[in-house]
Amino acid sequence: MTNRQIVLDRLPGGEALAPDHFALRTADRPTPGEGEVLLKTRYVSLDAANRAWMQGATYRSALNAGDVMAGGSLAEVVESRASNLKPGDLVFADTGWQEYAVLPAKRLTPLPDLTPQTHLLSVYGVAGLTAYFGLLECGQPKPGETVVVSAAAGSVGSIVGQIAKIKGCRVVGVAGGEAKGRWLTEELGFDAAVDYKSPEFKRQLRAACPEGVDVYFDNTGGDIFEACLFAMKTHGRIACCGAVSQYDGAPPPHGPRGVPGLIVTKRLTLRGFVVMDFADQNDRALADLQGWVNDGRLKVQEDIIDGLENLPRALIGLLHGENRGKRMVRV
Amino acid sequence: MTNRQIVLDRLPGGEALAPDHFALRTADRPTPGEGEVLLKTRYVSLDAANRAWMQGATYRSALNAGDVMAGGSLAEVVESRASNLKPGDLVFADTGWQEYAVLPAKRLTPLPDLTPQTHLLSVYGVAGLTAYFGLLECGQPKPGETVVVSAAAGSVGSIVGQIAKIKGCRVVGVAGGEAKGRWLTEELGFDAAVDYKSPEFKRQLRAACPEGVDVYFDNTGGDIFEACLFAMKTHGRIACCGAVSQYDGAPPPHGPRGVPGLIVTKRLTLRGFVVMDFADQNDRALADLQGWVNDGRLKVQEDIIDGLENLPRALIGLLHGENRGKRMVRV
Repeated sequence: MTNRQIVLDRLPGGEALAPDHFALRTADRPTPGEGEVLLKTRYVSLDAANRAWMQGATYRSALNAGDVMAGGSLAEVVESRASNLKPGDLVFADTGWQEYAVLPAKRLTPLPDLTPQTHLLSVYGVAGLTAYFGLLECGQPKPGETVVVSAAAGSVGSIVGQIAKIKGCRVVGVAGGEAKGRWLTEELGFDAAVDYKSPEFKRQLRAACPEGVDVYFDNTGGDIFEACLFAMKTHGRIACCGAVSQYDGAPPPHGPRGVPGLIVTKRLTLRGFVVMDFADQNDRALADLQGWVNDGRLKVQEDIIDGLENLPRALIGLLHGENRGKRMVRV
Repeated sequence: MTNRQIVLDRLPGGEALAPDHFALRTADRPTPGEGEVLLKTRYVSLDAANRAWMQGATYRSALNAGDVMAGGSLAEVVESRASNLKPGDLVFADTGWQEYAVLPAKRLTPLPDLTPQTHLLSVYGVAGLTAYFGLLECGQPKPGETVVVSAAAGSVGSIVGQIAKIKGCRVVGVAGGEAKGRWLTEELGFDAAVDYKSPEFKRQLRAACPEGVDVYFDNTGGDIFEACLFAMKTHGRIACCGAVSQYDGAPPPHGPRGVPGLIVTKRLTLRGFVVMDFADQNDRALADLQGWVNDGRLKVQEDIIDGLENLPRALIGLLHGENRGKRMVRV
């Protein structure tokens, strides 16, 4: 009746996140009260935002040293004291990095039992919905337009690029290294890939977008954001989804050049979003995503690592761009 | 039959603009060809953007050394070889800084003969329309919201703040010095003013906007932009109109902090605009502006300087925040 947990033993502050910021702990398995459920964590979602939560309050409160590390999971109900959930139901829940969690049932919804279940955490989860709403609502791409996405080999970026292709756009992915670039163009159908680690990055970006960029889906911030800002066309749109280049270390002393000057002269629209903002449209989004997956137009890439104890290294690796597609840890 | 002109004798590059970048020259008065008109410049509009045009291509092509300095004017038709205009008609035209100019008539429209005529260059001209569209279309203010405007004592800012008051918002103006601040609150009805030259600026801004900022109308960029970005509320909107803090000198090596991180976490929308983008709605805007001026709810402040030869000093002074309201030079 134990519960293995990974706690955030020490906040990283301005350091790069390292394994020794975490500790493995064994606690008692919790017991649900009235209106609560006991959940068994199946797959923990790894997301760059996990690191941002350590920097301070964002769209959720800041993490503190000694807390069980926060994170969303695909989890199974093992005991229920609520009428809306029964043992065996699958839910997406903020269990944190632990084997078992007790949560109030009222914000949880049973998920369909799909095969593979992991798709509930990738293409039909936060990653897929983030890609869908960020691109289509904030980016407003039109057929024939040029769409650039950064962290293009990641869970969100790989789906953004494929949806943009489905919508008839020319798609350029920014990713680190030639191998990822080849995967994007040869396997996922991107029109071009640009390596942000290359000293020729800016020139490559210009060459890949000779007429400029209509829509930039930003997952990285920093130098890549700046390069894309300078490459935008008049009346272009930037969907601000995340800033992974800024999370793992001290906050940068300055922001990208060209702000706000280029926003004015190019009449750009930048829009920041968080996937929950569009929750009322989830049904439509999921129907579209399932249709595209089922007819083979949207390929789902998952990167599954085994073992609760490997969560710290899985997150650190993700922050260093190790993964392709959606990274998760099977517990 | 002469034509006095101010030429941009030497591009300032990264220097602060100085009188010796300009030269006074006397040329021959030009003669209109078929479809053209000869215009006599009455009032030249001074705008911070004049300096930005010297930095490179913006929404218009870059200026070159030796060119007659570019600028918009209220001008009178003195000779017409086009059917749509007759001598005596007033037009707003890109005459540049000179007594006479020949321009194609087809893009010119006769203006109504209002009293005072100068209102055609201030509240009913680019300044008033920029304030109107930028605030209402890009800012989307709602009654009760907090609106902050920078360069608040300038031609655009002073109108933005008053329109926001008319729309039922709480209005905070950012301006340099206590005298301007008093003018904004005591004469124009702003709820508060904040002095960006004060070492206490950020604290003052927070105190003036205790619940945060819903709409920020940015005329300045730079440190003021950054301070307002950090003060924004979730789902706030930033209308990017100009970046006067960035024009007169070398381009800044970095942009404001918090971009794009705060855009994401606060789910902000930033929109850059140029007044011409909304030209199809000018009639509605002018009707609103005239109604507010006529019933005394919108006060028009103009800053009129005499003499073509004073144009360089008038622009330099504007870049240093010398003016209140719309600055123009009577030729």
